Amino acid sequence: MQSEPAAVSRRDLLSLIGVVCGSAAMYHAMTSLGFASDSGYKGPIKLDGDPKGTSVLILGAGLAGMTAALELRKAGYSVQILEFNSRPGGRNWTLRGGDSFTELGGARQSCEFEQGLYINPGPWRIPYHHRAVLDYCKRLGVTLEPFIQLNHNALLHSTMAFAGVPQRIRDIKSDFQGQIAELLAKVTQQGKLDEAVSKQDREILLQALRSWGALDHDYAYKANLISADFRGYAKAPGGGLDAAPVPGEPIGLADILKSRLWRYLQNFALHTFQTTMFQPVGGMDMIGKAFAREVGNVIRYNAKVTRIQQDDHGVTVTYADPGDPATPHEAKADWCVCTIPLSILSQLPLDVGARMKAAIDAVPYAASVKIGLQFRRRFWEEDEAIYGGISYTDLPIRQIAYPNTGYNASGRGVLLGAYLFEGANAYEFTSMPPAERVAKAVEFGAILHPQYRAEFENGIAIAWHRMPFTLGCAGSWTDAARADHYNDLCQIDGRIVLAGEHASYIPAWQEGAILSALDAITRLHQRVVKT
Amino acid sequence: MQSEPAAVSRRDLLSLIGVVCGSAAMYHAMTSLGFASDSGYKGPIKLDGDPKGTSVLILGAGLAGMTAALELRKAGYSVQILEFNSRPGGRNWTLRGGDSFTELGGARQSCEFEQGLYINPGPWRIPYHHRAVLDYCKRLGVTLEPFIQLNHNALLHSTMAFAGVPQRIRDIKSDFQGQIAELLAKVTQQGKLDEAVSKQDREILLQALRSWGALDHDYAYKANLISADFRGYAKAPGGGLDAAPVPGEPIGLADILKSRLWRYLQNFALHTFQTTMFQPVGGMDMIGKAFAREVGNVIRYNAKVTRIQQDDHGVTVTYADPGDPATPHEAKADWCVCTIPLSILSQLPLDVGARMKAAIDAVPYAASVKIGLQFRRRFWEEDEAIYGGISYTDLPIRQIAYPNTGYNASGRGVLLGAYLFEGANAYEFTSMPPAERVAKAVEFGAILHPQYRAEFENGIAIAWHRMPFTLGCAGSWTDAARADHYNDLCQIDGRIVLAGEHASYIPAWQEGAILSALDAITRLHQRVVKT
Repeated sequence: MQSEPAAVSRRDLLSLIGVVCGSAAMYHAMTSLGFASDSGYKGPIKLDGDPKGTSVLILGAGLAGMTAALELRKAGYSVQILEFNSRPGGRNWTLRGGDSFTELGGARQSCEFEQGLYINPGPWRIPYHHRAVLDYCKRLGVTLEPFIQLNHNALLHSTMAFAGVPQRIRDIKSDFQGQIAELLAKVTQQGKLDEAVSKQDREILLQALRSWGALDHDYAYKANLISADFRGYAKAPGGGLDAAPVPGEPIGLADILKSRLWRYLQNFALHTFQTTMFQPVGGMDMIGKAFAREVGNVIRYNAKVTRIQQDDHGVTVTYADPGDPATPHEAKADWCVCTIPLSILSQLPLDVGARMKAAIDAVPYAASVKIGLQFRRRFWEEDEAIYGGISYTDLPIRQIAYPNTGYNASGRGVLLGAYLFEGANAYEFTSMPPAERVAKAVEFGAILHPQYRAEFENGIAIAWHRMPFTLGCAGSWTDAARADHYNDLCQIDGRIVLAGEHASYIPAWQEGAILSALDAITRLHQRVVKT
Repeated sequence: MQSEPAAVSRRDLLSLIGVVCGSAAMYHAMTSLGFASDSGYKGPIKLDGDPKGTSVLILGAGLAGMTAALELRKAGYSVQILEFNSRPGGRNWTLRGGDSFTELGGARQSCEFEQGLYINPGPWRIPYHHRAVLDYCKRLGVTLEPFIQLNHNALLHSTMAFAGVPQRIRDIKSDFQGQIAELLAKVTQQGKLDEAVSKQDREILLQALRSWGALDHDYAYKANLISADFRGYAKAPGGGLDAAPVPGEPIGLADILKSRLWRYLQNFALHTFQTTMFQPVGGMDMIGKAFAREVGNVIRYNAKVTRIQQDDHGVTVTYADPGDPATPHEAKADWCVCTIPLSILSQLPLDVGARMKAAIDAVPYAASVKIGLQFRRRFWEEDEAIYGGISYTDLPIRQIAYPNTGYNASGRGVLLGAYLFEGANAYEFTSMPPAERVAKAVEFGAILHPQYRAEFENGIAIAWHRMPFTLGCAGSWTDAARADHYNDLCQIDGRIVLAGEHASYIPAWQEGAILSALDAITRLHQRVVKT
């Protein structure tokens, strides 16, 4: 990705900085200039050396499996993929009007969204530092648009604060920050920071707190046009006569602290969710479909793996078509890259050693429920000026996420009416019939947006623990499980290597799936070329 | 914009809150639910009553003038617009390959950008709370996409700090905030906040500071995976073996304070620049063109106004075609809405009273220079993972703004290589020949992005003080000038009323132009219908 002329001038610059300013400056120069990189991704993989027709059987046509297929085939391997579903992508999935699916227990849902509207039941956003996903999007022609994580005008809601009335994120954010700044400015002026901050720095600190915290000349955060420039106005500036702005009254720090709405603020600051995030134009499955344009011809769909065997010469995988489960098929290859989720793999007969088996058994899968709701009109934009982004609540629905596309359009819209991730509510919603999940999402959502009652049309609810192809949302590693089992999970066991988000330090993210596949096939290739 | 069923349930809710919780809760409920609104815009204007063929001459086909024309014609007026340029939009303007223009002094520039690439020399972003602009975009079919103001991975650069090496915004932002939180947590634990914060609140404050400031269990902000989750990693989490993340070393608070890079942080918090901002897909002039699709047939282009007269019966405006300045033309109407910038209007013979004349003369126009640069490839994305947003520097160029469209695409890209606004550098750049401005932008920009040297292709530089149709970027009101003159500027003087961003409390923004036009024609209409 680094062009040569630029790289050379950067190295010169860095070495100069190292000599002149020492290693700390050098480090910050490196991180700033991008060498100490944002991603484990090193650019397109290079698998040098001739595999001489070696065959690889890949289990799963999600992003990990299709990445492996794409790159191994390019390197000269003979590849085949077995996929449980009748479509590519796995959790990379988008639901549109006309789609339908059946969950464990037999409930079948049909999506009734208007044409052009969709929901992404699985991954729905791509951080800018997920360089592998972005590079495959570039190489495969997937067009991206911004995903809005922080919308200052969206809502923070606690049933136990502000009489249950939702607050604007901008108010909580500005008022918290402003009053933090005021408190620190006060103790700075009172000489209480004298041990911690030098005299010269204290003066700059006061300036910084004033600038960043919207403090007035007395270092106070209060109702005036300075704070209004951050939190918004009671009466916004206008045009012509009677156009002067009027500030609003900040929310007191004690009220913010007690409300605990501050705990949502980190959702906008975490590296994972920092600007600029992306989503594919038209739905997340544009990525899966783009991969399938490349490797679709080696995918055998509707192939439910029932057994994985290996010996010194190769791998034999038994599978059946769910429509004809009594007729087993076999696929053979020299090697196997298995991306089947551990939740399912742990239940299959599998010829691997005790350590890998223990690792496979050690990772529970997270519960997650997503509910898409269609409304007659985009009332969140029209009535409330909420364009994209996410509102947070302590209600069981946890989040309401507004569409990051089709802004300002007339007509219908679909929003994510609930995103439950782990916790008791996720299990509770999973246990409900789909229609009840949708009804609950409407009932709870109407507490934040009363317009729900008049505008709701239809919905669809995905409970990941009931999805037959994953039995859960993603691998839920604890630190202890990782210490005990992660390396065993990732080793090549005979002729089998695992890949997928579960075999990464970026669980539940597509980047983890792709990077784990690239790492797995790199090591597999080294063995093949060496032998 | 408010649908009736929703409005009713909101009012019920609000009145209930007022009764149960008192007026403070009521206020926060109102602001949260959107009644105490984000904009002076009240929805589509209603001009009831028959103007009986009254004629209005509008001077200027910028957004103010075209808004006035659109709405007055709809209300039954006979309207005509005189426009200096040969295109609609005024400062609502986009430059693409093939466009050319001549500035004062005679320098002519031709834009050589590749097809599909552009720069917006005037307005380039639309806040979500600029409800009038957004509503006209909706009514006129202008498609919007997000404008990224804050890109955490863009750069902050001071020539006098960090050996001149640019820093990532995310590092400065996280490390400043984290160490502010640490300082405040320390004094809280030392009992130094006991006067200011109650005991119960102190405990919650500590939790909040830890959550928001990425502090560890000892309330320290330091190199660990907690701070790395906010600021990013030295080695990012990856997939497969050797994938564990490694945190980087935070930048010390003293270094951040001395660098003064903290002063840029408010650019991401100010209400004006809060998410979600927008830009029209394809260029800002999509708005001007959309208005012109409606009112283009009443615009007389290439009409340079030279005199504005009025008497008790109407208004007479003298104008000439710049191609034939010796042949004056006259246009007459019952009323005049004049949107000519004050920088130009103050130099014209104009029949208005002394108070309005004094107001017109009281507003200097801000200097501003924007420079668009085309590069062979989007190196800021490919090499540095900077997708959209803005880098800030204390170099004369002030800002480098990356395109908020075409993300992740291969091929050429155009960025905003300089945005000088007021200050000595803006005047200095204005005084340079265009080619020198471009050369300087490349020279300075290469300090942040060494790739400039290899990748630069061509550029174009707009110095607003040299643009014949505005002689400056926007009206630069002081508080004192506003107190003395603003109301006089906005009054109807006989049969003339002024409109434009200069007649608003949102100077330099399109919302100010539109809101001022709506206010002016509302008052004009009241007079017409009354007489």
